[in-house]
Amino acid sequence: MEEVEAAGLAVGTVVETRTETLGRDDIVAFARQFDPQPMHLDEDAARGTVFGGLVASGWHVAAVTMRLMVEARPLGAAPVVGVEVERLRYRRPVPPGTRLRCRGTIDAVAPALRPGQSYVTMSVDTLDADTGSVLISQRWKLLAYRGEEG
Amino acid sequence: MEEVEAAGLAVGTVVETRTETLGRDDIVAFARQFDPQPMHLDEDAARGTVFGGLVASGWHVAAVTMRLMVEARPLGAAPVVGVEVERLRYRRPVPPGTRLRCRGTIDAVAPALRPGQSYVTMSVDTLDADTGSVLISQRWKLLAYRGEEG
Repeated sequence: MEEVEAAGLAVGTVVETRTETLGRDDIVAFARQFDPQPMHLDEDAARGTVFGGLVASGWHVAAVTMRLMVEARPLGAAPVVGVEVERLRYRRPVPPGTRLRCRGTIDAVAPALRPGQSYVTMSVDTLDADTGSVLISQRWKLLAYRGEEG
Repeated sequence: MEEVEAAGLAVGTVVETRTETLGRDDIVAFARQFDPQPMHLDEDAARGTVFGGLVASGWHVAAVTMRLMVEARPLGAAPVVGVEVERLRYRRPVPPGTRLRCRGTIDAVAPALRPGQSYVTMSVDTLDADTGSVLISQRWKLLAYRGEEG
């Protein structure tokens, strides 16, 4: 706990990330590998779906969210180790060219079983950087521990 | 609703997927792009982490889960459109060479706002195909609709 608090992990702490643009080719490449469905693979096929056009796989947006959050080092020197995603909501479709940015807010810090380890609960919003709309909202339960000691 | 029921989406229906082996190079490639942390990138660096060795990013295992589930067509002809992941738990680390398979169970089917659309709640377990252990468990809320009519 002291280590975690020393790293500035106080409830209410907000972490903002850089932006990343989701390109059309990125969307299609991810979909071919992990989510091969018409709304993610091809403009023409996507037009006939409930989305009316090409949109990113939600798992792709979630993966880019992880990338941006990891780079922002929300737990200081400790890695970002997920225990649980309490709730992940896909709130808006993400078309090609969307500039993503993320915001993490620490909601709770509690002792974990082992000394030096804590559970950190963090709300993570993935935003459209141009409009400010929330695209995906989720709540992460993370295991925070001291650097490389485990 | 009738369409959904006609597609065999009854509560209790179980969908089993094929297996896919998570190779060491796949794990590192995914991590470089989406989760660049020591436990996912490099054997030596991973040894010093809480995992004691290289493990797949949880988002990678979740993405492969989506791939396997999409191929198994759990909603029949309708695509798999996520509204929400109610809870996703990372239950066991996933080292290189793990053979994954998934099992989806329909927990509930309820009418959505528009005619011909339904919400389907499905428990999805990602298993180690060799031991039967659950690696990730989650609950998906999906929007099921009639083919390409939206």
